[in-house]
Amino acid sequence: MVVKVAVNGYGTIGKRVADAVARQKDMKIVGVSKTRPTFEARQAVERGYAVYVAGKGARSEFEAAGIPVAGTVEEMIQGADVVVDCSPEKVGTANKELYDRLGVRAIWQGGEKAAVAEHSFNALANYSECLGAKRVRVVSCNTTGLSRAASLLQRNFGVREWEATLVRRAADPRESGKGPINGILPTMKLPSHHGPDVQTVLPGLPITTAAVVVPTTLMHVHFNHVRLEHPPADVSEILARFSREPRFVLFPGSSGVEGTPQVMEWAKDRGAGRGDVMENVLWEEGTKMKGQDLYFFQAIHQESIVVPENVDAIRAMFSLETDAERSMKLTNESLHIGAK
Amino acid sequence: MVVKVAVNGYGTIGKRVADAVARQKDMKIVGVSKTRPTFEARQAVERGYAVYVAGKGARSEFEAAGIPVAGTVEEMIQGADVVVDCSPEKVGTANKELYDRLGVRAIWQGGEKAAVAEHSFNALANYSECLGAKRVRVVSCNTTGLSRAASLLQRNFGVREWEATLVRRAADPRESGKGPINGILPTMKLPSHHGPDVQTVLPGLPITTAAVVVPTTLMHVHFNHVRLEHPPADVSEILARFSREPRFVLFPGSSGVEGTPQVMEWAKDRGAGRGDVMENVLWEEGTKMKGQDLYFFQAIHQESIVVPENVDAIRAMFSLETDAERSMKLTNESLHIGAK
Amino acid sequence: MVVKVAVNGYGTIGKRVADAVARQKDMKIVGVSKTRPTFEARQAVERGYAVYVAGKGARSEFEAAGIPVAGTVEEMIQGADVVVDCSPEKVGTANKELYDRLGVRAIWQGGEKAAVAEHSFNALANYSECLGAKRVRVVSCNTTGLSRAASLLQRNFGVREWEATLVRRAADPRESGKGPINGILPTMKLPSHHGPDVQTVLPGLPITTAAVVVPTTLMHVHFNHVRLEHPPADVSEILARFSREPRFVLFPGSSGVEGTPQVMEWAKDRGAGRGDVMENVLWEEGTKMKGQDLYFFQAIHQESIVVPENVDAIRAMFSLETDAERSMKLTNESLHIGAK
Amino acid sequence: MVVKVAVNGYGTIGKRVADAVARQKDMKIVGVSKTRPTFEARQAVERGYAVYVAGKGARSEFEAAGIPVAGTVEEMIQGADVVVDCSPEKVGTANKELYDRLGVRAIWQGGEKAAVAEHSFNALANYSECLGAKRVRVVSCNTTGLSRAASLLQRNFGVREWEATLVRRAADPRESGKGPINGILPTMKLPSHHGPDVQTVLPGLPITTAAVVVPTTLMHVHFNHVRLEHPPADVSEILARFSREPRFVLFPGSSGVEGTPQVMEWAKDRGAGRGDVMENVLWEEGTKMKGQDLYFFQAIHQESIVVPENVDAIRAMFSLETDAERSMKLTNESLHIGAK
Repeated sequence: MVVKVAVNGYGTIGKRVADAVARQKDMKIVGVSKTRPTFEARQAVERGYAVYVAGKGARSEFEAAGIPVAGTVEEMIQGADVVVDCSPEKVGTANKELYDRLGVRAIWQGGEKAAVAEHSFNALANYSECLGAKRVRVVSCNTTGLSRAASLLQRNFGVREWEATLVRRAADPRESGKGPINGILPTMKLPSHHGPDVQTVLPGLPITTAAVVVPTTLMHVHFNHVRLEHPPADVSEILARFSREPRFVLFPGSSGVEGTPQVMEWAKDRGAGRGDVMENVLWEEGTKMKGQDLYFFQAIHQESIVVPENVDAIRAMFSLETDAERSMKLTNESLHIGAK
Repeated sequence: MVVKVAVNGYGTIGKRVADAVARQKDMKIVGVSKTRPTFEARQAVERGYAVYVAGKGARSEFEAAGIPVAGTVEEMIQGADVVVDCSPEKVGTANKELYDRLGVRAIWQGGEKAAVAEHSFNALANYSECLGAKRVRVVSCNTTGLSRAASLLQRNFGVREWEATLVRRAADPRESGKGPINGILPTMKLPSHHGPDVQTVLPGLPITTAAVVVPTTLMHVHFNHVRLEHPPADVSEILARFSREPRFVLFPGSSGVEGTPQVMEWAKDRGAGRGDVMENVLWEEGTKMKGQDLYFFQAIHQESIVVPENVDAIRAMFSLETDAERSMKLTNESLHIGAK
Repeated sequence: MVVKVAVNGYGTIGKRVADAVARQKDMKIVGVSKTRPTFEARQAVERGYAVYVAGKGARSEFEAAGIPVAGTVEEMIQGADVVVDCSPEKVGTANKELYDRLGVRAIWQGGEKAAVAEHSFNALANYSECLGAKRVRVVSCNTTGLSRAASLLQRNFGVREWEATLVRRAADPRESGKGPINGILPTMKLPSHHGPDVQTVLPGLPITTAAVVVPTTLMHVHFNHVRLEHPPADVSEILARFSREPRFVLFPGSSGVEGTPQVMEWAKDRGAGRGDVMENVLWEEGTKMKGQDLYFFQAIHQESIVVPENVDAIRAMFSLETDAERSMKLTNESLHIGAK
Repeated sequence: MVVKVAVNGYGTIGKRVADAVARQKDMKIVGVSKTRPTFEARQAVERGYAVYVAGKGARSEFEAAGIPVAGTVEEMIQGADVVVDCSPEKVGTANKELYDRLGVRAIWQGGEKAAVAEHSFNALANYSECLGAKRVRVVSCNTTGLSRAASLLQRNFGVREWEATLVRRAADPRESGKGPINGILPTMKLPSHHGPDVQTVLPGLPITTAAVVVPTTLMHVHFNHVRLEHPPADVSEILARFSREPRFVLFPGSSGVEGTPQVMEWAKDRGAGRGDVMENVLWEEGTKMKGQDLYFFQAIHQESIVVPENVDAIRAMFSLETDAERSMKLTNESLHIGAK
């Protein structure tokens, strides 16, 4: 079976999901939607995607800009087995009524509330629970990063308590209207919503989170303190676990990667599409054990980390693979995840 | 007695310490030192301070710029009861030999190692231990902020465990050469040195810290998670404690102070010198209790928070006041600390 | 006569205008208005200003925050001889109907179109033309900076052609929502609106401008290329003219002031209110002559440069002084303009 | 003939030049050099380049990091027909003695003074003058951007006078140590060195430049004002000229590209290596004619714009193509320059 996928909203996440889906043998893109005829709409055409007009967009504007229009979003969905909703926050939930009416399966992103779908999804954490599901929500970038790490550590060492401080990027690289330019904004809600959000994929995980927003566009950085149930003899065993799992990348001290600027440089050099980093990024020197306590930093690329999860979610929903490992292997290889 | 104070290094901290000392009735400035005839050297003259040439500075350069020179640093110190060393990191320790030779009492800043002095100092934490001391180190901005809060909470509620994540400003406002411009740099040493540094003033405090550096110049922000021995019934008692102590300021939600940009704006409006904030800054909405656990953010103004501590340290060293509260009251009133 | 002044909108500009007016012997503040009970509203009360509720603000919110309310904006204006409108862009023009109905004189800021008032004003450029005017618009920060420099140079050396490139700050220090965080945004309108805006105060000046927006909050920087009618023998004569006029400040190379970060630091050290710089800032080394061509940079403090102009505008409107020099002298001295 | 190319210095420019050379049929990479075994050294190995140890680098460090070392820089050069020096500013000139001694042809980058080589080079401006040259300097990113535009306009419309204001990025994306974080730094030298530097490839061009440095890492932006000898009837003819030449890209208003953040996003979407933009970037709406005067903005990607010029320079030096157009066509096609 080749699953026909429509991507509703061809922005930061949508365009990456479209490209990732297009690389899968068991899936194909039937269309993407866009509100205005921007450079991204033009790129969609260059890449061979049928472009449909979304929201309040006007067909005439696209035509004036020389961008052919395939139809309306409703028409796009009618040709699809599943729609991946990548529209702006809250618009996704408003779209639910349309998807229900058209009887199409749907995936939402983590900007929507968990209640929008039957399941919240992370491939490492709960793939098998989402087999055959009709409505799935792929959790947000920060929640994905935490869920992956928590899933791996819980399975191998047990987690007694997890505290994470999230240092969040304030805007994506292409957003020129958002600030702050100079300053730090604490997220006053304490603990932050990220902990409960991780619990939507890992129920019962004893995690507490807090967040601040800082003036950077590149990546989030998490500081994690984890009290383990069964701590290993030393940190090398932890590092070995992370380095064996392709959705993590570990930098040694000799690499000269001292922070997110060099991670992004490395990714551009590596040559994966758009300089993306779909892996959690850890540092060998920034990972320490002290008794039962594990401390580690991880950097999360907000633009792309959820992309492989969307692909795996489709595979789970249509039972294209019933085993998480096999799905992730296909996804990783097609997207060069784990490549150096 | 009026203590004669020399300030060796009239930069970010030094100029603030000089102005603060000049406002005390029991102290006077006998001179400040500067390497080059910059706008700050000129300001020193405008304020009536005798300017001495420091380090490799050339008297002729000052004279060419029309800035009168009072002499060498050695001459400055000979007229002083105590020298406050505000030279760049590590230079302070190198100066120790000079101070020893001249037999002058000395205060260092927190950029130097604790071993440079007999005592590490924080007014709220250990004033009385430094009475009569000859060599004192005022701990750094981050350590001062943590020590104040820890001292207050430990005394009132007991501290079982303290975890702090420090989100640090990358440069001071006047430093135009330091980055990063866009990116987050984790401090790979885990736990960070700040925890042990707090223990130099509060021995045995069970504190663990981690740090990241972010592209802002305004203030540091700490996220703190404290497990209390004797937690109060609710958070209002915590807030009441903080608001009663002048070295803390608390913003209510209605204030519109959502982060460090507005704290700095408030400080400029308040009209204390240079827009400084010598208090720890907390938010009512960013302070929460959950069982035994207290969560709170605090912002720390790296340029000025140690200034009142230097003043109190002088008072302790010369036993001008034997009681911490009385010294702090004099300092606070003269520097408008606690003013709204 | 003591002119009664109401300030409608107590934000970045409004609060500075209020403080400046309060320092004049021939003026007094009868009230300021604010939409919400923020820290700035509280500061207004601390400073002794009667606070009126503006726009859609709710009296009850102020009362809940413990901030006494003196009445409505309409009531405030009824007690005033002139209202200085410092409301957000475009709101000012919408307020015109109210001011007309109440028959109060009014000053607008440069965010409004020139047509809102009878005259666009700059003290150095056209004070005498605004004597007795009922409706005056003080031109924007960039236009004020250009008009001052153009007025001085035109009078002394004649201007044949003026080209300015404006490198604009993207947000004010207290605005944490505006970007870009990383990037440069050209203002596509070419030439930019600033040139024609300067011509509202200096009709016929042959000026052409272009602008880009950059990620900083501190100051704008203009690069100016001026072809002079009667160029002096060398640049020192130009520098002498600028340094004799208090609304300009000139930094020598030895000052170490290499850009806007050090200008702001100097201003904080100088101790004028809020670290403001109401002068145009020039650099001796950044001012050159080559034949008929004068090249110079100037930095403009967007938050405060128009403040003295508002004060002078009031004086002109009520003919408190009929001579520009005398008005500026009063304003300069009361606001420490030209102090080092 | 296949020219054997060594790249001395595998950093921001060097790694891009290596990849570009590797794509040419008439050239091959014989090695690249690196001082330390960073992630970039590892990438060089992944890409199949022989890695030689540069400068004070230690072979043992590379071996400890598992990076095979092919030899010393001297050994690398002995196997090469030409060395492209991409070492840090001023190191390049210090390397000249080595290249002379080994009798190898050499290319330097624009950070070195013009006197280091026989010719300063820009493909559009003076390809034919460098045919057979032994020592060539490819001018810097800003000079390349200006030279391209000036060459095209001069040839087609004549240039009577050119004024450019350069708004420069303060650091490259991977440099986390450079500032300013918040502020604008005027380059006090007036006019700036860029004008004379353009004249090294376009002698006699009447160009004057000035520069400021701003806190961004993405691209430089130039504002240009050009007085033309033979201005066209309207701007569309100018736009047509630019759009016909592949080393320029023009964005229409409908593209939504409002500044450098969106240019970079477009480049990542386009999928050329590393998200590079080797073209001068112009905006249709940011290009205006008024009488004889042309005004336009252009953005310059400092990391990559000189890369095709290095390739063309090699072709000129070895007379692989005697015609500039043919060389540029090969370079453009191999590097996807001009692709949308």
